[in-house]
Amino acid sequence: MTVPRRHRLAVPELIARKRDGGALTEAEIRALVSGFMDGSVTDYQMSAFAMAVYFRGMTFEETVAMTLAMRDSGKVVDLSHLNAPTVDKHSTGGVGDKVSICLAPMVAACGVAVPMMCGRGLGHTGGTLDKLEAIPGFQVDPSVRQFRAQLRKLGCAIIGQTESLAPADKRLYALRDVTGTVESVPLITSSILSKKLAEGIDALVLDVKAGRGAFMKTESDARELARSLVKVGRLAGMQVSALLTDMNSPIGYTIGNGIETAEALEVLHGDGPDDLLEITLALGSEMLRAAGLARTGADAARQLRETIRSGSAARKMKEVVAAQGGDARVVDEPDRMKLGRQRQTITARSKGFVGSIDPLELGHVSIALGAGRRRADDSVDPSAGIRLHVKVGDEVQAGEPLATLYSSKKALITSSAERAIDSFTMRKSRPKRVNRIIGAIRR
Amino acid sequence: MTVPRRHRLAVPELIARKRDGGALTEAEIRALVSGFMDGSVTDYQMSAFAMAVYFRGMTFEETVAMTLAMRDSGKVVDLSHLNAPTVDKHSTGGVGDKVSICLAPMVAACGVAVPMMCGRGLGHTGGTLDKLEAIPGFQVDPSVRQFRAQLRKLGCAIIGQTESLAPADKRLYALRDVTGTVESVPLITSSILSKKLAEGIDALVLDVKAGRGAFMKTESDARELARSLVKVGRLAGMQVSALLTDMNSPIGYTIGNGIETAEALEVLHGDGPDDLLEITLALGSEMLRAAGLARTGADAARQLRETIRSGSAARKMKEVVAAQGGDARVVDEPDRMKLGRQRQTITARSKGFVGSIDPLELGHVSIALGAGRRRADDSVDPSAGIRLHVKVGDEVQAGEPLATLYSSKKALITSSAERAIDSFTMRKSRPKRVNRIIGAIRR
Repeated sequence: MTVPRRHRLAVPELIARKRDGGALTEAEIRALVSGFMDGSVTDYQMSAFAMAVYFRGMTFEETVAMTLAMRDSGKVVDLSHLNAPTVDKHSTGGVGDKVSICLAPMVAACGVAVPMMCGRGLGHTGGTLDKLEAIPGFQVDPSVRQFRAQLRKLGCAIIGQTESLAPADKRLYALRDVTGTVESVPLITSSILSKKLAEGIDALVLDVKAGRGAFMKTESDARELARSLVKVGRLAGMQVSALLTDMNSPIGYTIGNGIETAEALEVLHGDGPDDLLEITLALGSEMLRAAGLARTGADAARQLRETIRSGSAARKMKEVVAAQGGDARVVDEPDRMKLGRQRQTITARSKGFVGSIDPLELGHVSIALGAGRRRADDSVDPSAGIRLHVKVGDEVQAGEPLATLYSSKKALITSSAERAIDSFTMRKSRPKRVNRIIGAIRR
Repeated sequence: MTVPRRHRLAVPELIARKRDGGALTEAEIRALVSGFMDGSVTDYQMSAFAMAVYFRGMTFEETVAMTLAMRDSGKVVDLSHLNAPTVDKHSTGGVGDKVSICLAPMVAACGVAVPMMCGRGLGHTGGTLDKLEAIPGFQVDPSVRQFRAQLRKLGCAIIGQTESLAPADKRLYALRDVTGTVESVPLITSSILSKKLAEGIDALVLDVKAGRGAFMKTESDARELARSLVKVGRLAGMQVSALLTDMNSPIGYTIGNGIETAEALEVLHGDGPDDLLEITLALGSEMLRAAGLARTGADAARQLRETIRSGSAARKMKEVVAAQGGDARVVDEPDRMKLGRQRQTITARSKGFVGSIDPLELGHVSIALGAGRRRADDSVDPSAGIRLHVKVGDEVQAGEPLATLYSSKKALITSSAERAIDSFTMRKSRPKRVNRIIGAIRR
């Protein structure tokens, strides 16, 4: 028997139970999360609990309870005023991942309401918000009222996570970030889903990335996370499906903010790179099917391609950019996006086939050029970034360009060039083509 | 590569390394402990680290580094002015464990300097400080200067842990206590040893208890802790040995504060219970041998028994009590210790042999009577407690007294009596006698 602690939640006992491999009840998890918000559960208890979860995991029931408790820690948006199914997409983060920017208007142009809530870059992965803010004037923080109004009018809005949605997740994530407790499948699951549930959407499509440039380095880890997200999401009452996608090389030919936005906008005009279009169509397909607007992948892909051919996706994006205060001319003229005045092109040291392009290293080079953050309160340079001139499998001669680095500061380029060159490995024979789409998890 | 965090200790990376089963360097552990003290390592990082240590353990080298870093977080007492070897004893805590009170004067009377630093009771185990404070006037918090002077004059002082010794341990323990991270062998080891090293002693004898009334419930867990303490203590430069002792029934016939002090003082007059004398002689033997004052256990036991026969131990205790402001008459007249005016004797429900007396349950009964703390800031009733009338193996008839409960409040007795009776189990045949001393670990 333990010494009774009267009149308060027995937090040390809950932590010890998790530590010893036991499970918490739904009521206990709700009490833990609400105690965390009101201060009766301290940060040092929550971080110890998170570490115990790291080692012991959580049952699906516990993860659902955690997800719902964090959802309920703040406002839950009501989107029932919309006359369309609402579907959002979430990616676990990669390098060169500008998919949201072309995906949202394409899917919205098909008749799905897309309340896309995005994040900022931290670590080696970029953030869609930073990319969109490279468009002059673009605002990513409308009020919930404006957000609802824009969704009703345009069927699409792209915004940052507001403070009022799932604040418990925001606090817990900040704690996990500095206590070595990020890499836990149930905690990642509840973090992602609590925010998405608070958005009030009907369905969610997940892009779970696997590989060197992703959070999950192996396909099996990514698959485990995807399964958890789909299962817990469904138990929590949302329609969720997930694609597993390859993140062993950067997506498209660009890494950075403005430079990636420009590339994503090219897709709307039929000019985007193959792999970016492949991922966009695959995720868009999932979204259309989740919304009940397509029955097969082929039907969905046809509708999505039609938004490019007809120009409806580009028109939708112009409306969205204008509604959010941005310069809508960039949609038709992506070249308007400013690139760093300092530039340097790096070249191949020897001839051969490009065997790999390290996304993690180039992610760090991109940060070093000014495009990313080392700490959450750093600002980003919208004009910094990298343009690749080759993709994995291309044949190059010695001295041929591999990539161009852009920055506002020459010194940042000089100090990064060597590392950028080292991110490319050459080989004698042509490597096998890798599909970006590894698999799908739908239940 | 991880995102560099400039100008500060990379605490999240250290936590993650421990979480993943790696080891920290001595410099990293020192930086962690000093950062914890200056606030640059937060409580929530330290508790996550402690939980990672709970799961991954620490190497002996890491535990030594942790021990020395915590020792060096405060003052380290210099006892080199004494002309005698200095030896202290530490017990991992049990029920009815009043050994220090008779052991210290007996060992000091043999010529060892005994700077005994004790703790307060918390949870089901009592604390020597609370027991001694039952002696009217007895002070347990002299200054370090008074402590050193008394040690030189009398060769014995019994005090509480001062704030100035190993403050990092005090802070870390408070954190572990509420985050489910107490039960970790390397953390227990560094906690115990850092304080003892800060005392400036030459040698330490440990009483590592195993059983239902102990912190370590199994002999193998207790042995693991004892081995860790002995090995780490020696690597940290202190002579350490440990006895494993049985804690499946209360020691002696008493549980409480004043009532235990009285029983321990009886030992000095040759009137103590057998098991209490057995443990005292065994630990005293280790201390005499560690001090180089005896070569064999038999020689040491003879010297210790002689301090009883000659009255030198009782005289030493009178000097210590007087020096610390207490009423020294209690040493020769233990009956002067006040017992609660409310009392009730519980009796056997059936005849038979006493098969077991649950120390954990009686520890909680003793708390309920007022003798212990539920929280660290509770005060204790020196007159509350339990006197056993039987020991394991005794034959009793139905209706014969098993124990008497003492308290200042009648209601506390009434509500505890049933639980006290339930702590005794009867059996038909006489149980085998159990030795208190299970084993010794000396290197």
